[in-house]
Amino acid sequence: MTTISVVYHSGYGHTEKVAQAVGEGVKSANATLHMIKVGADGAILDTDWDHLNSSDAIIFGAPTYMGSVSGPFKMFMDATSKIWFTKGWKDKLAGGFTNSLSMSGDKLNSLFQMAILAAQHGMVWIPQAEANTSTSEPGKSGDVESVNRIGSYLGVMTQADNVAADQSPNQGDIKTAQLYGTRMVEAAKRWAA
Amino acid sequence: MTTISVVYHSGYGHTEKVAQAVGEGVKSANATLHMIKVGADGAILDTDWDHLNSSDAIIFGAPTYMGSVSGPFKMFMDATSKIWFTKGWKDKLAGGFTNSLSMSGDKLNSLFQMAILAAQHGMVWIPQAEANTSTSEPGKSGDVESVNRIGSYLGVMTQADNVAADQSPNQGDIKTAQLYGTRMVEAAKRWAA
Amino acid sequence: MTTISVVYHSGYGHTEKVAQAVGEGVKSANATLHMIKVGADGAILDTDWDHLNSSDAIIFGAPTYMGSVSGPFKMFMDATSKIWFTKGWKDKLAGGFTNSLSMSGDKLNSLFQMAILAAQHGMVWIPQAEANTSTSEPGKSGDVESVNRIGSYLGVMTQADNVAADQSPNQGDIKTAQLYGTRMVEAAKRWAA
Amino acid sequence: MTTISVVYHSGYGHTEKVAQAVGEGVKSANATLHMIKVGADGAILDTDWDHLNSSDAIIFGAPTYMGSVSGPFKMFMDATSKIWFTKGWKDKLAGGFTNSLSMSGDKLNSLFQMAILAAQHGMVWIPQAEANTSTSEPGKSGDVESVNRIGSYLGVMTQADNVAADQSPNQGDIKTAQLYGTRMVEAAKRWAA
Repeated sequence: MTTISVVYHSGYGHTEKVAQAVGEGVKSANATLHMIKVGADGAILDTDWDHLNSSDAIIFGAPTYMGSVSGPFKMFMDATSKIWFTKGWKDKLAGGFTNSLSMSGDKLNSLFQMAILAAQHGMVWIPQAEANTSTSEPGKSGDVESVNRIGSYLGVMTQADNVAADQSPNQGDIKTAQLYGTRMVEAAKRWAA
Repeated sequence: MTTISVVYHSGYGHTEKVAQAVGEGVKSANATLHMIKVGADGAILDTDWDHLNSSDAIIFGAPTYMGSVSGPFKMFMDATSKIWFTKGWKDKLAGGFTNSLSMSGDKLNSLFQMAILAAQHGMVWIPQAEANTSTSEPGKSGDVESVNRIGSYLGVMTQADNVAADQSPNQGDIKTAQLYGTRMVEAAKRWAA
Repeated sequence: MTTISVVYHSGYGHTEKVAQAVGEGVKSANATLHMIKVGADGAILDTDWDHLNSSDAIIFGAPTYMGSVSGPFKMFMDATSKIWFTKGWKDKLAGGFTNSLSMSGDKLNSLFQMAILAAQHGMVWIPQAEANTSTSEPGKSGDVESVNRIGSYLGVMTQADNVAADQSPNQGDIKTAQLYGTRMVEAAKRWAA
Repeated sequence: MTTISVVYHSGYGHTEKVAQAVGEGVKSANATLHMIKVGADGAILDTDWDHLNSSDAIIFGAPTYMGSVSGPFKMFMDATSKIWFTKGWKDKLAGGFTNSLSMSGDKLNSLFQMAILAAQHGMVWIPQAEANTSTSEPGKSGDVESVNRIGSYLGVMTQADNVAADQSPNQGDIKTAQLYGTRMVEAAKRWAA
């Protein structure tokens, strides 16, 4: 059975909400899902490492803090170097998502960072493939209901207002995250065939 | 007197509108302004090169097409290599702006591209310094009246809907561009002192 | 049969030499190969577009000029926007290589640019997966015989001295390019299964 | 008097060696120097924060681990968010350097990360301005004696072999770092005038 891990850090719950949406997309496509939350010190459990190592695809998720992935997530990224030495993740699939307060907020830099991590591991990168559906009318760009309203392609970008995670990110972003989870399962099935 | 050049390409007029706003900010701060429009073949006039060479600061502007600066603007960037050989622009100030249809649209990649060009020339990079003023209320992120509503810092990002340039980009983006032009003059005066 | 296109620009022959090495790697893995050279104006033939559209994978190649892909290659990249509108390249495989005079020369920026282009098209990115074999001894980093001597992962980086293309890039870089061509065929076969 | 802070993380001593070279360049230009070492948990002392806040320029330094700045340095970067809220570093000068085992090793990504951090703070970025002096002869690129032998412009890139820091990085890299420290002092004096 196709197995997908979503490994993420979340500081205030917004990125976790997005992670859960990605996970919903994974489950809706009938894959085994491992949700792995990185601690404030960058650590995950030994069983989490086992899950990552046995997954067909790994989706990385982190908030963008000061223009790149959060410190705890970077601590986790560094810890993958022990796997890098043995090329243990070579030819797994990879993807990523990131959240911040602003529309851009330099989130592309975080996706670059995740794509570089994946490339160093020899992993195959699956981009976000939904078109931005929000731009057909003046003043509508970034409306809260649209899929890929921010216009991100390397991975999923979401935007959270300074409110609790139950209110934000909005439905367009959540839908985008769900679709990305599903896309990753489909890609993993095709790649495994 | 402080002299600033804005060198830009514009495919459909939206980036030109932003360029003009940057220029207004420059003029409002009592600097000499050269507006230099790059042709569809990437060319500028000999007198344009003279203006660039004699400027205290050069602000680069281009639409983001397929995730990086437009082809004609890249042709212009390549043509600066003749100046690079003699380090003719070393220690001038530099900055940049870019426009696309989506909120992100991978515009950060274009700003990276401009910052790298500037760095290769040994130019000093002046970032956009206005805070995003649009994020205090849920659902308001990216509202059309706010300064730096997209949340960009390396340079100015603007977003244009698929309508004529007189309707878009909106007032928040135009104001951001004006403030950036003014900031560049202030930086040039300080740097020249 | 697996079909791979290598679409590249070359200003002085060095990038073309690398492109040919990638092509050799493709052919050695028994795939159909289309070599497509972008003109100084960014144009390719109508039949070239047909070949790109019917390929399982497209490998992008360009020199890095002033820190990003050459102007002519960017003109080509922009021309792919007509395909972008119909998502015609979605789920094809993609990869990239770039050459410049220096070891770094900001070539990573060109690979980012290619990866972003691919992501906007919804293409799956196949990274370079060979370890840098040159770093085991002091002073040996970047030696001319080693595979991935520059230490690049997103795609292939090569370095050419200021001599004719028959002398440079060196054998390590050429071998790296060949291995990447072969890897792309293997990935395309797996992805098509 | 001009005051410069070098704030860095070093895992095995190689980046610290480069940091000290940058510091030597600062001192040789008669500026006050604060050397601030980030701990394995990302922390610095309260007095270190005072020194950063009172500096004319801040030079960031970190090893590149898995393609971006080390986790501890990212923890430090995140901690600067408290200053970001008050724009406390706006218009200070900024720069950066990074070290890794390979020539490229995706170090440009770390410099982008530092430049984005600086831009979010509204800091002015001073690039590395020395030409690569190693490329005049075939096979000489990256030779161990040359200034900017790697060909980096946004900041300083150094390469360390897998030996103790007293043996590597080599003299070319150390000289490049010294020159960058001196350049930062000169820029700070000009900017303060």
